Amino acid sequence: MIETIEQYLERCRGLVEGAIEGNLPPSDAAPSVIHEAMRYAVLAGGKRIRPILAIAACEALGADATPLLRSFAALELIHTYSLVHDDLPALDNDDLRRGRKTTHVVFGEAIGILTGDALLTEAFSWLARPAGDVEPASQLRALLEVAQAVDSRGMIGGQVADLEAERALDGSAQRAELAARLDFIHRNKTGRLLTASVLLGGILAGASESSLELLSRYGRAVGLAFQIVDDLLDTEESAETLGKTAGKDVAQGKLTFPALYGLAEARREADRLLAEAVALADMIGGPGNYLAEIARYICHRRS
Amino acid sequence: MIETIEQYLERCRGLVEGAIEGNLPPSDAAPSVIHEAMRYAVLAGGKRIRPILAIAACEALGADATPLLRSFAALELIHTYSLVHDDLPALDNDDLRRGRKTTHVVFGEAIGILTGDALLTEAFSWLARPAGDVEPASQLRALLEVAQAVDSRGMIGGQVADLEAERALDGSAQRAELAARLDFIHRNKTGRLLTASVLLGGILAGASESSLELLSRYGRAVGLAFQIVDDLLDTEESAETLGKTAGKDVAQGKLTFPALYGLAEARREADRLLAEAVALADMIGGPGNYLAEIARYICHRRS
Repeated sequence: MIETIEQYLERCRGLVEGAIEGNLPPSDAAPSVIHEAMRYAVLAGGKRIRPILAIAACEALGADATPLLRSFAALELIHTYSLVHDDLPALDNDDLRRGRKTTHVVFGEAIGILTGDALLTEAFSWLARPAGDVEPASQLRALLEVAQAVDSRGMIGGQVADLEAERALDGSAQRAELAARLDFIHRNKTGRLLTASVLLGGILAGASESSLELLSRYGRAVGLAFQIVDDLLDTEESAETLGKTAGKDVAQGKLTFPALYGLAEARREADRLLAEAVALADMIGGPGNYLAEIARYICHRRS
Repeated sequence: MIETIEQYLERCRGLVEGAIEGNLPPSDAAPSVIHEAMRYAVLAGGKRIRPILAIAACEALGADATPLLRSFAALELIHTYSLVHDDLPALDNDDLRRGRKTTHVVFGEAIGILTGDALLTEAFSWLARPAGDVEPASQLRALLEVAQAVDSRGMIGGQVADLEAERALDGSAQRAELAARLDFIHRNKTGRLLTASVLLGGILAGASESSLELLSRYGRAVGLAFQIVDDLLDTEESAETLGKTAGKDVAQGKLTFPALYGLAEARREADRLLAEAVALADMIGGPGNYLAEIARYICHRRS
């Protein structure tokens, strides 16, 4: 391969940030406070892993991602909206995110709520706008795939289940019930949008149904691995490295994979999912296919 | 005409409620609390004026609204999401809406926030799903029209400006500045979604560009009249009639049309806009065109 995975991720991150920066309303558009807040929330760094998965899926199928970057960047708006709302006092009540004050801490709670709303709305605008020479029917299908991934039975449903699972480790619930709950949370809260990201890249690239099926399975494996590694990092790492309040899940008695199965088993499961994702990535094939490398990066990352 | 306007509105309301009821996830879908909350918020009565405007625009152009009802009902999800979030403690802090406890009062603030998010997301799903034999390109265009109407420069922008305008009547701002602000709030907070509702009906009905231009002008006139009448009702009516805390705008020193121009001038402006809307409705023509009657209903309503 021409680039190392680090170079590839760095280059993609630049493309995604350019698309976000270039397509968000300018800071001085009226009313300026909401546009400043949207930029503050979304241009705060971050791995941009969702749009990068879309780019990688698109390129693995031999399509050019360049005219589709705005559509792919919409995934980052959706991810950011979910973080902005999750951080609110009524939900996780987090003051710190990616080493910076959270949006509602800087702009106030009302603007925090409306900024999340605005990012979600903007995302659907970007998904509905012209995207290269993609057929309108494919674009509608891709938009619907993303919308369903983050609806009340998808990402929002996972967030609701996560809220309900707080203090679930107090001993009153049965282990089998906890395992089922945890599976629901993982599949939905993180997994669905990650899977939809891979599918968005595939659908806009004009993938066949069989390729989409492989991409979907790859997305589910990577999505679950991503969440397990996230839980592991929260357990293992210090607040300094992560830039967010680490150990918080444990302190809150939150239901996580390591809390339920232990650290060693969690690491084993992440490795098993990685092997599955790599095998699927190889079946998708294509020159310049970074899907396997991205799965490795996700499972071995330290932050 | 076969039906009186009251009969027409009642029949349309029934169609819209059927589409909402039939397309929302069932209450027992997991996690059930969010689905109960979505139904609580949206199936709480209400005039359903936005989907009805879409139906009327569609029918004025001679198209059958029946296969498009889910798309039109999406407008009510968006309207309801905006109410659920506006009612939150960090925003307007309202406990009562349509004579019932607001969603966050019944389900808690976290679920209140997520219910709004879920309704907005569900709306874009409904707009992206198959709609009769509408061309995918027209459907994408209609979805984009709605998304832009409610983004940070549209409805959310109007809400932000409205928050900023609280206590603007304390005497420090110049009259011209207040008038400009009020115009921004009215055009965006209510007007944009009402205009998009009419356009959604027109675009999905396959309207010509010249018909869409007339529908857009009709929508703007009706949207502004709707907001002025809303402000007038808040000033004039008792809490009992409205089922919400009336006189609240005045108590909060909120910037409204009657507060800035007086009751008589506000009523005159509503009548002028009504005449404009009726003239435009007549130009749109078509048998069974209820657009003029709906404009009259909006301007003469007592709640």
